[in-house]
Amino acid sequence: MILIGERINTGFKKIKEAVLNKDGDVIKECARQQADAKADYLDVNLGAVSNKPEDLCWMIEQVQEEVDLPISIDNNKFVMLKEAIPICRKPPLVNSVIADEKKLDELLPIVAEYKASIIGLVMDESGSPTTADKRIEHAGTIVAKFMEYDIPPDRLFLDPIIMPLKFMQDQSVEILNAASQFGLFTDPPCHIVCGLSNISNGTTQKGLINRIFVSMLIAHGLDAVILNVNDTELVNAILTADLIMNRTIYADSYLEAFRR
Amino acid sequence: MILIGERINTGFKKIKEAVLNKDGDVIKECARQQADAKADYLDVNLGAVSNKPEDLCWMIEQVQEEVDLPISIDNNKFVMLKEAIPICRKPPLVNSVIADEKKLDELLPIVAEYKASIIGLVMDESGSPTTADKRIEHAGTIVAKFMEYDIPPDRLFLDPIIMPLKFMQDQSVEILNAASQFGLFTDPPCHIVCGLSNISNGTTQKGLINRIFVSMLIAHGLDAVILNVNDTELVNAILTADLIMNRTIYADSYLEAFRR
Repeated sequence: MILIGERINTGFKKIKEAVLNKDGDVIKECARQQADAKADYLDVNLGAVSNKPEDLCWMIEQVQEEVDLPISIDNNKFVMLKEAIPICRKPPLVNSVIADEKKLDELLPIVAEYKASIIGLVMDESGSPTTADKRIEHAGTIVAKFMEYDIPPDRLFLDPIIMPLKFMQDQSVEILNAASQFGLFTDPPCHIVCGLSNISNGTTQKGLINRIFVSMLIAHGLDAVILNVNDTELVNAILTADLIMNRTIYADSYLEAFRR
Repeated sequence: MILIGERINTGFKKIKEAVLNKDGDVIKECARQQADAKADYLDVNLGAVSNKPEDLCWMIEQVQEEVDLPISIDNNKFVMLKEAIPICRKPPLVNSVIADEKKLDELLPIVAEYKASIIGLVMDESGSPTTADKRIEHAGTIVAKFMEYDIPPDRLFLDPIIMPLKFMQDQSVEILNAASQFGLFTDPPCHIVCGLSNISNGTTQKGLINRIFVSMLIAHGLDAVILNVNDTELVNAILTADLIMNRTIYADSYLEAFRR
């Protein structure tokens, strides 16, 4: 499982203040904590705090001074991405682009040039899909553009768009059905990723719902997740589901072995 | 989710002694505890303690004196079943028969007569299957016999045969793939059931592995499970997976609501 740590995000007050005050130590500490918890990528989200590329680049640089993990650049504006992608020391993951041919045509050349990966959201300008079929249709649009630009499919992370269980209860089955089809588009298959915490928005059982839903998604092919990697119970659920899918080798101490 | 309580089993020392001493109160207390935890069926397993039908019938009678739940008769010998099925006050679930035409021809007439349901194990005399395809082939044998005897398919519970993760790690994916096909045989679909605890045999993380695997199976169509219904964390996982599958209506208090 590819674990994408979500905490360097100005949605968290501490991070917002660190960006405003250019306090790199706060960013570095957050990067270190997630690296210690075995994150594979660190998501960096400037949010609405600023629209200056140099602020996003500053955040990325703080992370890169502390840890040697690749960055997930959480921004969908080309003007920001074209500054941020080149400063990444390792090929980054661009989070995200939608199934819009114009946006893909703008972004994919630089993705190809820097050997970056990309999260493709299976939605378009008209909004979020409500059926599995619509999700699969949008996935097809993104995959076709990837092939047009001759980018290997394993640098594409398709996101089936998680909806809150509390408010759109019919969507989870559609999401599971869509995810199970995403792996069939290409060989090698593309990755399947999600922003997990959306599922439990507004509920009273966030941890439990996150753990169960991620397990169900893994049973349908999910192999990457944007999460709080310091949530030990959640990571234990993911490690167990990975074991059941026969992706990691069983050991009685499989939980401890991961953290060693 | 159909919850089949597994605790009235002579594999547990207390139950074994109760059967040997004909101490009905122990059986009754175990029945009550599982009924209070919202079991839908109570499994009754005489095991190797006796091969006398009257001992099995005595166990069933103790349960029926205490609670009004239907019985899951955990025995595969026709000589036992033909005595036990008729004394059940509610149509029982026969646990279990294998994909053997002779055994099915022996059992299905009495199943039809008493409107019983049956757990069909997708294996035959040659042993347990090791692939999804073999599981699906055995399921087909059982379904065909059900149609021959004109028994509604929703009285069939197909069991994909859970193997221990620790010793046969490649089997879980085969089981998930098989389960996802079982629902396609008939309309209405048959049920899909499993003896869950097999998955975690010999492991150091039994509870966690049980919870994650049952969630993954539910994502592939499982709608019945033989379990310790007094394991609150396990039942909470199942209730959450049911919610995600849109089988129950979301409420903030969904865990408490189930137990009210």
